Amino acid sequence: MATEEIVTPRPVKPREVRGNETMSGRAATSAARGAKDLQEIVRLCKTRGFVFASNDIHGGFANSFDFGPLGVLLKRNIEQSWWRRFVTEQDACYGLDSSVMLPPVVWEKSGHLQNFSDPLVDCRNCGKRYRADHLCEAEGNDETNRQAMREVLSNGKCPCGKLQPWGEEVSKVRDFNLMFETLVGPVVEDGAAAFFRPETAQGTYLNFGNYTKTAQPRLPLGIAQVGKAFRNEVTPGQFLFRTREFEQMELQWFCRDEEAEQWFDHWLAEGLSWLHGTIGVRPESVRLCEHDASQLAHYARRTTDIEFKYPFGWGELWGFANRGTYDLSCHGVEYREPGGGKSFVPTVIEPALGLNRLVLAVLCDAFREETVITPGGDGAPDKEEKRTVLGFEPSIAPYALAVMPLVKNNAEQRGMSEQLVRDLRAASPHLSIVLETSSGSIGKRYRRYDEIGTPYCVTVDYDAPSTGQVTVRDRDSMAQVRIAASDLMSMNLTGLQRAFAEH
Amino acid sequence: MATEEIVTPRPVKPREVRGNETMSGRAATSAARGAKDLQEIVRLCKTRGFVFASNDIHGGFANSFDFGPLGVLLKRNIEQSWWRRFVTEQDACYGLDSSVMLPPVVWEKSGHLQNFSDPLVDCRNCGKRYRADHLCEAEGNDETNRQAMREVLSNGKCPCGKLQPWGEEVSKVRDFNLMFETLVGPVVEDGAAAFFRPETAQGTYLNFGNYTKTAQPRLPLGIAQVGKAFRNEVTPGQFLFRTREFEQMELQWFCRDEEAEQWFDHWLAEGLSWLHGTIGVRPESVRLCEHDASQLAHYARRTTDIEFKYPFGWGELWGFANRGTYDLSCHGVEYREPGGGKSFVPTVIEPALGLNRLVLAVLCDAFREETVITPGGDGAPDKEEKRTVLGFEPSIAPYALAVMPLVKNNAEQRGMSEQLVRDLRAASPHLSIVLETSSGSIGKRYRRYDEIGTPYCVTVDYDAPSTGQVTVRDRDSMAQVRIAASDLMSMNLTGLQRAFAEH
Repeated sequence: MATEEIVTPRPVKPREVRGNETMSGRAATSAARGAKDLQEIVRLCKTRGFVFASNDIHGGFANSFDFGPLGVLLKRNIEQSWWRRFVTEQDACYGLDSSVMLPPVVWEKSGHLQNFSDPLVDCRNCGKRYRADHLCEAEGNDETNRQAMREVLSNGKCPCGKLQPWGEEVSKVRDFNLMFETLVGPVVEDGAAAFFRPETAQGTYLNFGNYTKTAQPRLPLGIAQVGKAFRNEVTPGQFLFRTREFEQMELQWFCRDEEAEQWFDHWLAEGLSWLHGTIGVRPESVRLCEHDASQLAHYARRTTDIEFKYPFGWGELWGFANRGTYDLSCHGVEYREPGGGKSFVPTVIEPALGLNRLVLAVLCDAFREETVITPGGDGAPDKEEKRTVLGFEPSIAPYALAVMPLVKNNAEQRGMSEQLVRDLRAASPHLSIVLETSSGSIGKRYRRYDEIGTPYCVTVDYDAPSTGQVTVRDRDSMAQVRIAASDLMSMNLTGLQRAFAEH
Repeated sequence: MATEEIVTPRPVKPREVRGNETMSGRAATSAARGAKDLQEIVRLCKTRGFVFASNDIHGGFANSFDFGPLGVLLKRNIEQSWWRRFVTEQDACYGLDSSVMLPPVVWEKSGHLQNFSDPLVDCRNCGKRYRADHLCEAEGNDETNRQAMREVLSNGKCPCGKLQPWGEEVSKVRDFNLMFETLVGPVVEDGAAAFFRPETAQGTYLNFGNYTKTAQPRLPLGIAQVGKAFRNEVTPGQFLFRTREFEQMELQWFCRDEEAEQWFDHWLAEGLSWLHGTIGVRPESVRLCEHDASQLAHYARRTTDIEFKYPFGWGELWGFANRGTYDLSCHGVEYREPGGGKSFVPTVIEPALGLNRLVLAVLCDAFREETVITPGGDGAPDKEEKRTVLGFEPSIAPYALAVMPLVKNNAEQRGMSEQLVRDLRAASPHLSIVLETSSGSIGKRYRRYDEIGTPYCVTVDYDAPSTGQVTVRDRDSMAQVRIAASDLMSMNLTGLQRAFAEH
């Protein structure tokens, strides 16, 4: 994953901006991009405030994470970008926010009560519990019949390593439902069961008729939803990759069966376009994985996953499925074209994306460590420095801009910085703009903002109050330009990117 | 709630825009604002796609609702406006998104396992279950001791009306915990309990130390969170007012105790300012309710509710509480100022707002029915017409603009409308803009957009393709102005409001 690339920064030296980074007009960096191991990411997330382990002060809670001050901004920016692309900009797509808890009847009809389960076995010798399907796969066997799986395992060995063959010590394969159940109603004895949804999609299918009645009577029709889902996962999670609770961003696209393949291709292309073109995930970090017939769910006509190269290997990021007429049929939902015509069950194309997983992918993809070489000058040796950068696409970065007085205690610089932040926030209400007032060299402050992926730092120096000009420093090239503070107001992120591209 | 007000519309008559509404230069309306009864709102929400009853195709699910295509946009706009005001624009406030499920240790320490309950009684005669505190209140008694409550009820009557005095037929008062419990882990026999949070605040307290470490080491410090909470409510819900699952928008403001009262006043003022000034809830629809000593929770120093006048009466909308040092103390969390100094437990000021409840308040407040009188002319009688309007503040309206060809099948008008929508979406990516292509008179189309609260309709008529001018029609005044389509691009909602104000 560590592809080498050379960034050629073109820093200029504004008169009053000091610090190592700007000591020379020529600096070079070499960069290794993409996180090499997950622990690097976990550590950065914790120390800089992206993601914390849940309940860490009382002993934690496995597979459960909280999004901190920066993580929540990154997540919201990604979510809102998805919503704009797949709801706001689509004439035939509509949003939905349906209930998380639903009664058993829904999960009976959808098949989740019967089938949404993992096969588990116990070892009577070591006392541990294992995923039977994972163990079979490790034996090179993709058996799904429970009886046959047990025979495979019985001839294999227990993962604890002590028992081979496993023989009679491996238990029968038991199905363990992944849905969380609870009781609704005043007291246990007469409470009714309810389940927390393991996917947002069922709430969408239940509402299909409400949308043809109120939003758009004709097909094709898309219903998009972002929301929490819960799964009682027993396998280790790999940080944000698999968590007990997570957010899904799912589109259900209802169309005529004869157009389904064409729409499948359309949404897969839209997905890739948004992923690469809008939120900046690099093409070399993803691949397509087409499921063959043996991997398809019984109702699925076609499934293609966009996989991401996580530090622990390739894994699913975004699943695109032609689910046929299965889901609406389960719920007994039919469609009739306005003005009469035959009733039929529409086909569903589902692009299903996990938001938490995408946040992890974006973090891993954006992570890079660079060696910045500053020539020593006067015969002194070159200075090498390491910097860590989260190279987020500017529009999804937690903070779009950091504004800072060059000297913290300079009242004039401080006052102008505060005013600038207020004005920028008013001009760009959808961007997060932070006022940075810590001390420390300007170079160190830039490094801190590189590490959290802030694309632009704006420094108010000694000249700024009299000239009205500020220094804008670009995260990636480390180049700096002088810009009139008033011009900054009318310049959105695209304008800033252009300013540096033309620089 | 039905305050009378007269809107004086100043419609102009663009050459080609037809329909009753524009048959005359003089029309008058009289309006009754605010929903008179909840059923009016429920009906409008269902028929136009704001809110649907959950799982309505399989028999429903009490106290549970889904936000449809328009409701989800309204809710998102309100949520994002809150986030901008209480996170983005605040130098000392940071966002958080913490886990919904948490283990029992958290709820033991917070006191929820012991105290977060409703007192219930059963009637042995009619077999029904009741809220004991509500029945005592109805008897004019605010007793909280369980034994004493039962005595009060025993002397009173059963709500079924058949038994008075209730005597020995009323059961002991039992405490019923409102948290939903589930089991985490592979199988029931060794699953560990976990609870779905009934409020977002506890996740915030758990993370306090993470924020002083990574975001801001100094007080005062605010942590804001929007997220789902779940409560096993047994009382009837009044639509969105009290639902089993709901979203909270809570700020926890950590400060020194000596500054707490001042900050309390500050946040209450900010709350009112946002409510009235930004999202447009009318001052006459809310009142402040200061809790007296007997109503305060044992740890609370002060609590003031912003109450809203719902169609069913005044009810809580937004609670502001000085919670003292109770919450952080429960979790054993202390604060130490950077650079040394004594440890202490900060005081918490909590403005806690329910998003679903606020959506209901905004819907009720914005609802109005008007009689539009169009003079008949030529001696014909005046024509009276009723219109329903959701007078949302433009920035939170589900659709900010609806663009429509005057004649659906006119290819030129249709093409220009489609192009206009694309351009407007690119120019204002944070607004939802809809292309309306249904047939029907332009007047009827305007009425449909009045009813869902769209502040501006843009009509592309016969002249538009050649002149480049379109007609913009204002929801509230029903006035119309001709504007160059190109000017519309650079005009945000504020610009449009100004255009009509100056008209």
